[in-house]
Formats: sequence, structure tokens, C-alpha cells
Amino acid sequence: MDIGILILQLMGTVSFAVSGAMTAMRKGMDVLGVAVLGLTTAVGGGILRDLLLGRTPPAIFSDPLTAALAVATSVVVFIPAVRRLLLRTPRVYEVTMRLTDSVGLGLFTVIGAQTACAALGHANWFTIAFFGTVTGVGGGVLRDVLAGDTPYIFRKHIYALASLAGALTWVVVHRFWNDAMAMLIGGSLIVVIRLLAAHFRWSLPKANAEEFE
Amino acid sequence: MDIGILILQLMGTVSFAVSGAMTAMRKGMDVLGVAVLGLTTAVGGGILRDLLLGRTPPAIFSDPLTAALAVATSVVVFIPAVRRLLLRTPRVYEVTMRLTDSVGLGLFTVIGAQTACAALGHANWFTIAFFGTVTGVGGGVLRDVLAGDTPYIFRKHIYALASLAGALTWVVVHRFWNDAMAMLIGGSLIVVIRLLAAHFRWSLPKANAEEFE
Amino acid sequence: MDIGILILQLMGTVSFAVSGAMTAMRKGMDVLGVAVLGLTTAVGGGILRDLLLGRTPPAIFSDPLTAALAVATSVVVFIPAVRRLLLRTPRVYEVTMRLTDSVGLGLFTVIGAQTACAALGHANWFTIAFFGTVTGVGGGVLRDVLAGDTPYIFRKHIYALASLAGALTWVVVHRFWNDAMAMLIGGSLIVVIRLLAAHFRWSLPKANAEEFE
Repeated sequence: MDIGILILQLMGTVSFAVSGAMTAMRKGMDVLGVAVLGLTTAVGGGILRDLLLGRTPPAIFSDPLTAALAVATSVVVFIPAVRRLLLRTPRVYEVTMRLTDSVGLGLFTVIGAQTACAALGHANWFTIAFFGTVTGVGGGVLRDVLAGDTPYIFRKHIYALASLAGALTWVVVHRFWNDAMAMLIGGSLIVVIRLLAAHFRWSLPKANAEEFE
Repeated sequence: MDIGILILQLMGTVSFAVSGAMTAMRKGMDVLGVAVLGLTTAVGGGILRDLLLGRTPPAIFSDPLTAALAVATSVVVFIPAVRRLLLRTPRVYEVTMRLTDSVGLGLFTVIGAQTACAALGHANWFTIAFFGTVTGVGGGVLRDVLAGDTPYIFRKHIYALASLAGALTWVVVHRFWNDAMAMLIGGSLIVVIRLLAAHFRWSLPKANAEEFE
Repeated sequence: MDIGILILQLMGTVSFAVSGAMTAMRKGMDVLGVAVLGLTTAVGGGILRDLLLGRTPPAIFSDPLTAALAVATSVVVFIPAVRRLLLRTPRVYEVTMRLTDSVGLGLFTVIGAQTACAALGHANWFTIAFFGTVTGVGGGVLRDVLAGDTPYIFRKHIYALASLAGALTWVVVHRFWNDAMAMLIGGSLIVVIRLLAAHFRWSLPKANAEEFE
């Protein structure tokens, strides 16, 4: 199972690094800025999770491999040929962002739930779900705040709810089955919800700005 | 006294949740975004306080009641009838924001001072006042940064000074009287200062932008 | 050596306080906002470093002297005569910001590396360099996010790379020589790289915004 978590973590790292690097490129940053934002997005959620669990220094600080993977991914995304492909049209950009951000959200949510459950002896469902959601959304929020964008969590279809649903699913499946299935089902659920929500443009009631002025 | 702190904490939670939810509505967010920003504003200061005190995981992670209260408050604020009332005019919006933000600031400042004093054996006045101020302003700063606004702390009349004055008052009253009176007097002072400052438009000297360009 | 670190810390505090205060003045904030942003910039990196090391409460919470120095520096910068001097032209503003920000970046990077090395028994080069860079850039990132600017780290010539180069230099010199020389050489290198990069306008390849739309 440990090797399984490692693989999921690396997949989440690559996904979030791509989303961070693409955000940086859209803002016209240079290759170093792209690498820094890719790295920050990829490791931000994990650092937040470890701080909240009191695990200091955070795991990433003794894990050059993960950091190098995030930086390398960002640099690859920056290569002109790759970049031109990803930024060709707003549509391609949007779909790639949605996909990588959703995969990162899904994986980091269930890894967060799993880590919290393993680290805290007697955690109840609320603690685990809260941890999963906070660490799942953490990297993306950091990415958007640093880039000066309104965080996805406030403007994308049922973003936080998808993460919460996946974390709660993790809790239930984990109790009645096992870790691996909990991560697989919980994580997949998040990605599926996000993609369906975006495809069918599920939307919740909004406050109209006109009401205000 | 414990029940007293709990009540103040719940009042502060409701106040900050309202201010977060209203900010989200002004930005035209959907009901989920409103709930997330209300929750974040309400629990942000407390999470920061617990991290700074080394109390991990932060208390809110094992407190579904407070989280549920913040979310429920945000959803109530979002109900069309309530929303129309609160957003009717910029003036009504402004006054409600000022009131809820001031009450939240006042309560979280003195709760922060009280918590730091209880958690750290031999804390001096500076440590306690610093903790009170940081945790008092934390939720509001998080709210404004996430919403893409300039934080209140930088643009509202003597915001940080009001919090600091209340925290120092807490220290003095606590030493010569007791916890309950310290929280009552310190917290009230913050709200009163903020409201007077806004009413009489107390202002400090500013750097004119024209000086620059 | 301890007195040496203290002096470097105070120099870094003054430098970052000036950069925070100037940013606040450019935004037209009042004297309290200027003091708060100066203080936040000066202490932000150190608080982040202590949180990541698990040293709670962070050192600054029991150090009124450093906090007072940061506030006093910000107020001095705000004095009309000083302010007029610093904001006279965009060029003077830009050069002063670059200088103070670079000195703060250099000093906090090597202090961060030194602190991490002393606090963690068996830290390897990666851990120390990561700590140095994170705490070096932390104060400036906080300053820019709070002021609503794109962080320097994403838009200034090789900002993060300068910090990383200094931190790695600290590691090497520390191993083969001693603490004092490591801080002196590592810190100076960062300032020199930053100033040379700005002077000669060294730039890395950028993603053109036009590619996107």
C-alpha cells in the first residue's frame, strides 16, 4: 500500500504542477516563475496538511525527489512545443486546467484523509473529512492567490463540495473495506463529479451582483 | 467561565461568518462559495492561533458544531429574503459589514489573548497582546485576500490599533480583576472604538498617491 | 556568533520593514497601514520558518524589540521629509525597493538556513536550502499578496534562483569553513546577483501572453 500512496502522490504532484505552470504561463511569467508556481501548487497542500497535523518539518522538506518532479514537470510544460500545444486555444487551456486541477484535487483529498487518519489515533469522520478537504483544496488556493486570480474554489462548479464528497466517501469505504479501495473510489468520485459538473454546467444559485448596486 | 467563552466563540463565529458570506455575495459567488468563504472567515483566525501555539490539529478540526454553525449562518444570509435585506443599498451593506466584522474582531481578539495566556505558562504582556491581535485580525485578512480585496486592516479606520488596544486592555484587566471582565471590557472596547472611528471618520495621516507619480 | 546573527537579523528586519512601508505608501495607505505592512513583511518570513520547524510560539512573539524596530522603521519612512525623498520619482522608489528587498532576501535566506541547520540535527543540503529559500522569500510574498501586487518572486529577475543560490552557497561554505563566513558569503551573493540581474536586465525566456489569446 505504501508504494501505492507514493504513486498517487507523484501523480497528484505532476497534475498540480501542470496546473500551476499553466497558470503562470497565462500570466506571462518567465520560466523561473513557472517553475516556482508549479512547485508551490504541487507542494502547498501537503505542507499545509503537515503543519495542521503538527508534523514538522513537513515531509516535502526531506523529499528532493517530489520537489524535483514538480519543477521538472513545470519546465517540460514550458518547452515551446508543449506550451504552444497547451495554450493553443482558450478551450484547450481550460480543459487541460480542469483535468489536471481535478486529478490533483481528487488525489490530494484522499491522501490528506488517509494521512490524517493514520497520524491521529482516534479521529472521527468529521476530522478526517475536514483534513482531506483542506489539504485537497490548499494547493489550488495557494496557486490562485499567488497568481492574483479568484480561487477556483469560489468560481468553479461545486469545487469544495466535490472534495468534501470524496473525503466522506473515503471515510465510509475505509471503514467497511480498506485503504486502497477508499482512495480509489473517493479520488475517482471527485474527478468524475468535477468533470460532470463542468460538462453539464451544473450550477448552484448565485447572488447577482446587480442586487447589490 | 468555560461556558462563557463558548458563547463568545459562537457569537464571534456567527459574526465573522456573516461578514464572509456578505463579501462572497457582493462578488456574485454561488451558495457554495458563500458557505466556504463564511466558514473560512469564521475559522481562519482560530486555526492560525492554534498553529502559532503549536496546538495541532487545531481545535476546529474536532468541532463539527462550530463548523456547522458557520456554514448554516452563511446559508441563512444567502436566503433571497435575507440577502435582499442585507444588500438593499451600499449603505446597509457597509453598516452590516462594519458591525459584524467589528464584533468578530473584538471577540476573537480577546479569545485569542485568553487562549494564549492559558496555553503558555509564563507569557508576558507582549506575547499575549500579539497573539490576541494576530488571531483577531486573521479571519478578516483571510476573507479579504481570498476575495481579492485589500484587507480591512489596511483601509479601515484604525483597525489594527483597535484590536491591539483591546488586547492590551485584556492584559491589564486580567491582571487586576478576572478573565470574564477582561474579555467583556477588552472586547467591548474594540467594538466601540471601531464604531466611533467609522462614525466620526477618524483618520490618520495618509501617503498621497500623488506624491508618488 | 550569536551577537552576529542578532545584528544580521536586525538589519534584515529594517530592510524588509522599509520595503513593506514603501509598498504601503505607494498604495496610499495611512500611517497605521504602513506600520502594519512594514511589520508583517519584516516578521512574516521568520514566523513561517518557526512554524515549519515546529518552534511554537514563533520567536517573534516573545521579542518586543524586533517588532518595535520594524514598526519604528516604518514610521520613520512615513515621515513627510523621508517619504518625499523616497517617493520623489518612480526611479528612486524602484531602486530603494530593489535594494531593501534584496538585502532582506539575502539576510533572511542565510538566517533561515542557519536556523534550520541548528534546529534539525541531521538535516541534509536539500532540507537546509529549501528552508533558507522559503523563509527568505516568505516576507516579501506576504507583503505583495497583502498589498494586492503580483509577488516579486514571479516578476523580478531570477528572484527565487538568487535565494536558492545563496542558500546552497551557505551549505557548502558552512561545511568547509564556518557559520559566519557562510552567512557573509551566501547573503552577499544573493544581493549581488539581484543587483546585477536588475542592472543588466538579465531575463529568462517568458511565455508570451499573446501565445494564449
